[in-house]
Formats: sequence, structure tokens, C-alpha cells
Amino acid sequence: MDYNLSHFGTQMSELTGVRAIMKDIIETLRQAGEREFINLSAGNPVIIPEVEKLWRDCTAELLASSEYGEVVCRYGSSQGYAPLIEAIVKDFNQRYGLNLSDRNILITPGSQALYFYAANAFGGYAEDGSLKEIVLPLSPEYTGYGGVSLFKEALRAYKPTLDIDENGHRFKYRPDFSQLAINEQTGCVILSRPCNPTGNVISDEELNKITELAKPAHVPVILDAAYSPPYPGLNFTEMTPQFGENLLHCLSLSKAGLPGERIGVAIGEPELIEVLESFQTNLCIHSPRYGQAIAARAIASGQLGHIAENVIRPHYQSKFAVLEETLDAYMPKTVPWFLHRGEGAIFSWLWLKDLPLSDWDLYQELKQQDVIVVPGSTFFPGLKEEWQHKHQCIRISLTATNEEIATAMQRLAKVVEKVYQGSAVGVG
Amino acid sequence: MDYNLSHFGTQMSELTGVRAIMKDIIETLRQAGEREFINLSAGNPVIIPEVEKLWRDCTAELLASSEYGEVVCRYGSSQGYAPLIEAIVKDFNQRYGLNLSDRNILITPGSQALYFYAANAFGGYAEDGSLKEIVLPLSPEYTGYGGVSLFKEALRAYKPTLDIDENGHRFKYRPDFSQLAINEQTGCVILSRPCNPTGNVISDEELNKITELAKPAHVPVILDAAYSPPYPGLNFTEMTPQFGENLLHCLSLSKAGLPGERIGVAIGEPELIEVLESFQTNLCIHSPRYGQAIAARAIASGQLGHIAENVIRPHYQSKFAVLEETLDAYMPKTVPWFLHRGEGAIFSWLWLKDLPLSDWDLYQELKQQDVIVVPGSTFFPGLKEEWQHKHQCIRISLTATNEEIATAMQRLAKVVEKVYQGSAVGVG
Repeated sequence: MDYNLSHFGTQMSELTGVRAIMKDIIETLRQAGEREFINLSAGNPVIIPEVEKLWRDCTAELLASSEYGEVVCRYGSSQGYAPLIEAIVKDFNQRYGLNLSDRNILITPGSQALYFYAANAFGGYAEDGSLKEIVLPLSPEYTGYGGVSLFKEALRAYKPTLDIDENGHRFKYRPDFSQLAINEQTGCVILSRPCNPTGNVISDEELNKITELAKPAHVPVILDAAYSPPYPGLNFTEMTPQFGENLLHCLSLSKAGLPGERIGVAIGEPELIEVLESFQTNLCIHSPRYGQAIAARAIASGQLGHIAENVIRPHYQSKFAVLEETLDAYMPKTVPWFLHRGEGAIFSWLWLKDLPLSDWDLYQELKQQDVIVVPGSTFFPGLKEEWQHKHQCIRISLTATNEEIATAMQRLAKVVEKVYQGSAVGVG
Repeated sequence: MDYNLSHFGTQMSELTGVRAIMKDIIETLRQAGEREFINLSAGNPVIIPEVEKLWRDCTAELLASSEYGEVVCRYGSSQGYAPLIEAIVKDFNQRYGLNLSDRNILITPGSQALYFYAANAFGGYAEDGSLKEIVLPLSPEYTGYGGVSLFKEALRAYKPTLDIDENGHRFKYRPDFSQLAINEQTGCVILSRPCNPTGNVISDEELNKITELAKPAHVPVILDAAYSPPYPGLNFTEMTPQFGENLLHCLSLSKAGLPGERIGVAIGEPELIEVLESFQTNLCIHSPRYGQAIAARAIASGQLGHIAENVIRPHYQSKFAVLEETLDAYMPKTVPWFLHRGEGAIFSWLWLKDLPLSDWDLYQELKQQDVIVVPGSTFFPGLKEEWQHKHQCIRISLTATNEEIATAMQRLAKVVEKVYQGSAVGVG
């Protein structure tokens, strides 16, 4: 039977950004037959043995305790499982000299759900009918932000400035404060730091400038710290997590080995926490508790922080090093290629200036060489203006082996060389 | 800092129905001191040893297998964990002679989230600006339906007819088909069967009549089977689960001992499943996988169905028997009290016709006797007309011990006697 959807139904049944591409990738892999693809599209973290062991050990402990029945066989509080909240309060107070209490914490079923609550509780239409924008101060950004607002027109991303090292073939995005507007028309600000897809870590000064801009209009800044220290600690450059006032600091344990369990954590003022908690109660009662119970143990014992720093971070940082070295060695010197500075996360981001074909066509060319990346144009949710740059980038996942990454980057270099040559011939 | 909320933010930060009452109950219990309350307000199922053992055993198996890392340390598909989907397809096809495939199934993080997706994907405002109602064919209904629609004005409940056994002090709600309208203005229909809070099981004929009414306008009927067979099997009367066409059959494992893990299951046409799956992808990516993995084992082995029938159902059915016997023995014969027929769920529902005070005042009187129930007026979400009956009911949870239930019902009988006498004196 065909059903009539509401406006939201129509909108929420569209898959945005990278999720639309995923269908093509899955289809490609299904039809692969004998061909062996190097799949650098994945956002799914690898299973690191030490990390799996940590979660197995915590589960065995939980199973051996009388706590198990209370955790799994009972409903819990919407705010979250008390021992997890307590462990986070203690750990963050100690690490960062904060004065958090349990009133500053909310546990959500993954951090994507948290962005859904925040985007729609603060952004969208106000009681007086005015539109409150959800501002992304940097673009490209996490593709999932494209799906969380119930009002697509509320999402507004800003074009960044480009900090380019021409000779070194490196670049970095920076917020364009000459353009960025945060005011009475703003509902909330969202940004990721470190950034998926670029690996960018905006500076403390830049972040402070954003939160200061947002204060006069009482606008919350939702900081997506899914790759940030202390867990998963996927920063490859020094960075200081920021907290307080209108900044809502949002963790995820997905890159700390728990993506299957969906654990997000919001840390912020009680005024923010209470709004989001009620939204959660109405939407899904509470977050799953098994993941919360094992996370409580891993955080309280200090093991999660230790493994993040000593296992998870070095793992992905070494992948980035392989990628960087291979590109430096094999990419044609004459082509204006620029790798985004690898400051964190589990991806790298390559900009091919004046690329003679679209990012989508480049993706297809790479598939011909059995390499799968993600076309970059899917990572600009909310950017309303046209920008050629959007079609000149690709995202490369760091979740493969060293050998796969090196091989894939060599093939990429060849494809890029051919593509720019073809263009030069064509133009000449 | 004070923050400005969007219209949805304001609305979703209000706690509806019974959740507002819960604050008063929690406060009462906190201040109890030496007093020992019999708390019959809880919707939190008791931990039944056989049920806890089942989930512990499944967890130990999972932990002993290589599957663990894939389940917990990796993202999964939005639709759900494949072995769980497979187990449900197989079990339901076998039990009910269906032809389900994996395309008919969606796993959600609890069934409340499923009602949120459905209410807002089908109800609310259409593209042309018209309001599509979320119809509750019976009222009272599950209080959580009051919180799931982003547009409060979309929720419309219908007053039922009352099927009264005057001498037996029993009654039953029935859909009032002379009033119930399901048409082009309807977005979707939602109802629970067995019903929380009343324990009502509407007949197959009544349910079929509702789905038939909904077909011409292509309206989906969202059937909340949280207490239905085969799991948790909390029906105390014969009932046949219904499937197919515009009916979306929605399970929950919360009353089968997994409330902490949040597992909901939608079974229906791919056209319905796909809409809800995309909504879920955008909102929270996927449901937690540990709960899915242990549920897959418990269903595939047949143990969950077995325990539901042989342990969970008899447990609550015997509680209802104690409640019923105590009320029959102690309630004043002359008072027009009517217990809703106990056809399922984990609550009983008492109607005190011509109650001389409000349900809220009765709740306060019972607290004086150290008994906590839930005032019934919180269970009429979406019922727009005034109805005296709304203020004459209480919900009594079956989650206490036999002794507690018997004692509490004796105290209730005394309070009721006093209250009606006082009134008679007052009137006389």
C-alpha cells in the first residue's frame, strides 16, 4: 500500500549526504565477484584487540556482579545510569579542574540523537513563527548534521577561509569570522572538533571566539567532541577540551570501541541538560544501560583513558602517517593537490584544486582501480551557496591496513596524474 | 544562562501524563523516613529470576563467541542486527503462518522511539499544510503517546463505550464505532493491545474493523503489542496477534525482561518499514546491538517464548487474581466500583463511578494510608472533550508482592468506603 507522509515524514525518509552514497558503495561491493576492493569509505572503526578486550573484561565483571539484573532487566532514569554519570563527573573534574555535578550530565543513545534533540529544541521555528537557524561555522562538516533538523531551511553552514601551504601541499580550513553571524536569528551552533571529515582541530581561540559571539544572544554552542580527548583521544595535535556557560560538550564512545552500543554524553549547564533530558524522555525514555554500565567501569578504572591515549590514538595516527608519506612520494608535483592537515579523527581529506572532473567522477575512476573513497561534496550540509571547491575533495578513511592505504594512495596518484594530464591535453 | 527554545523545544521539554506525577511520587518516597509505602505506581517490571537467568546465559554465550567484537565494537545497519531479524522472521512465520522476509522488520531503540517516528512521519502537517491527525481509537491509552507527537494538536483520542457488569463490579472499554472517524484527515492510528493502563484486549473483530476503516484512506494502524504474545505473552485472555497490509505490528522486549536495553521491533509492509528506517538513520543511526544479539539467541532457541508463556504470564496473572479477590472480598458492595476486566498487561484499572472527590485527591488519601497508585486522569492523552469518568479512575500496578497487593487493596477498600460515606453524609 502507498502511504501519505507528513512533511517531516517526507523529509526524514530522505537519506542525506554520505548515506546516499553508501547505497552505491554497498552495491559495488556486492557485485565485486573476484575483484578485491580497497574500501576507504568506511566510518566504521576497526576492532582493535586491546579495545575489544577492555569491553569484554568489563562485561565479564558486570555479569559476575549482582548489578546485572538492575542494569538490564529494569527501566532506568532518563538522565542516565548513575554510576556512569558519577564516573564522568569525577574523571572530568580531575582531568580539567572542573566543578561538575551530576546535574551537568546527560547520557543519550549515541551522540547523533543528542544533535537531533539540540537541533530541534533550539533550532527550527520559535513560538512567534520566526526561523531560528542551526549554524555550522565551518564547512565541510559531519554529514549527519544534514539529517538532524526537522526543518531543512534552518540549517546554515558558512564557507571557511583556506590556509594554504602551496609548496608543502597542505591546507587547513579556518572559520571566516568576517562572514559568520550568530545573533537573535540563531537557534544553536554545532561543530565537530576534531572534525569529521577533515581532521581539522580549530584552535582554542577560534572556539572561544565562537562561544563569545553566541553569548549575547543566549545561543548554545553544541560541540561535537566525538574524536576529542580524553576518550577516544583521536587528536594528533595538542588541544584543550573546552567547557562551560553556553558551550555544551558532547562526547561519543563510538570511536572508543562502543559504536554498537550507542553512548553519547552531554556535559553542560543544567539549563541545557534539562531541556534535552525531557526531549529524550518523550522520545525514547532512556539510553540502553548495558553500554552505560560497562563504560562506567572502564572510565572509573582509568582504563578507557589509558587505552585511548596509548592504543587508539597511535593506531590512527600511524595510518595518517602512511597516507601522508605515500601521497608525498607518489603524487605528481605539478598538480595542485592539498591534503588537509591531519590533526585528528579517523579520516583524511584531500583537496584537488582545479580538478578537471567532479568529485563524483573521480570516485568512479577510483572504483575502476578497485579503490573506494567518498566524494567530498556530500560533506557540505547547509552550505547554500555554490562553491567549486565542494566538488574537488574526497574523504579517505584511515580504517584500512598500512598496506592497503599505501597501495590505494599509489593508485590514487596515478589516477590523479592521468586525469590532470587528460585535461591539459584537452585544453591544449 | 537562559536559552530560547523553539516551539518543539518548549513542547518536548514538558513532561506529559504520568511522568509529571512521577515527580510527586519520587518526592513522597524520598521523604518517607520510617514510613513504608506500598508502591503500586511502578511501570518497571519486577526482576523474575528465570528471566534474568535467560539474559545472563545469552550474554555468557555471546561473550564466549567471536561474535562479540562485531556486535559491540562496530556500527551496524539501521534496520537492525541481521541474526535478530532472521530469528524474528522465522519464529513469527512458524507461529502465525506468515510469509515475512527481512524486509518486513525494523529494530528500534525501544518501541517508544518507534511511535515517535510513526507519529511524526504520518501525523502532523502534510506538505499542503493540512493537519493529519494521530488517532487513538480508545481512551484511556498509554500515556507516552501524549509525548511522541511534535504537534500536540494532531493527537485525537476517542471516548469509548462502556460495557458494564453492574452486579459483578466489572467493566470493559470498547471502541465507539459510531464516533470513530478515520479518513483523509488521519495520518495514522495508534493503539495498545493488551492496553496499558487498562489491561483491555480489544477483540479481533474490533481490531479488524479499525484496520478496514483505515484502508480506504491509506492510513497505517500502529499496533502497540508491548504486552502481546508471543513475548512477553502478557495476555490473560485468548488473543490472536494480527498482521499485514496497513497494520504495523510493534513489539517491545521491555516486559520480557529487557527494559534496560531498549529493544522495539516493527513488523509490517516494506513501504512502512523503509520510511521508519530512514527516520531512524537520520535520528540515531541504529539501535544498540548487545540487546539485539542476546535477543536473537533467546528467540532462536525458543527460550524466550517458553519463558513468556510459562513464567512471565503466570506471574502477573496470579497478581491480578490476588487483586481481584481482595477487591471482591473487601470493597463495599453498595459503592459503584468497577474493575476493568483483567485481560492482560501488568496493571489493573479501577473505575469508581460518582467518586465524590477527584482521582488526584483519592491518590492523596491513599498516600495517607501508605499506598501509592497513579491517578487515572493522566492516561487520556489526546481526549479533548471533558468527561467526568476521567477523574474517577486509578491505575494499580501488578509489580508488587501478593501480600503488598492484598494489604493495599484492603486499605483502598477502607478509603473508598470512608470517601463515599462522607459524601453520602454530606449530601444527606
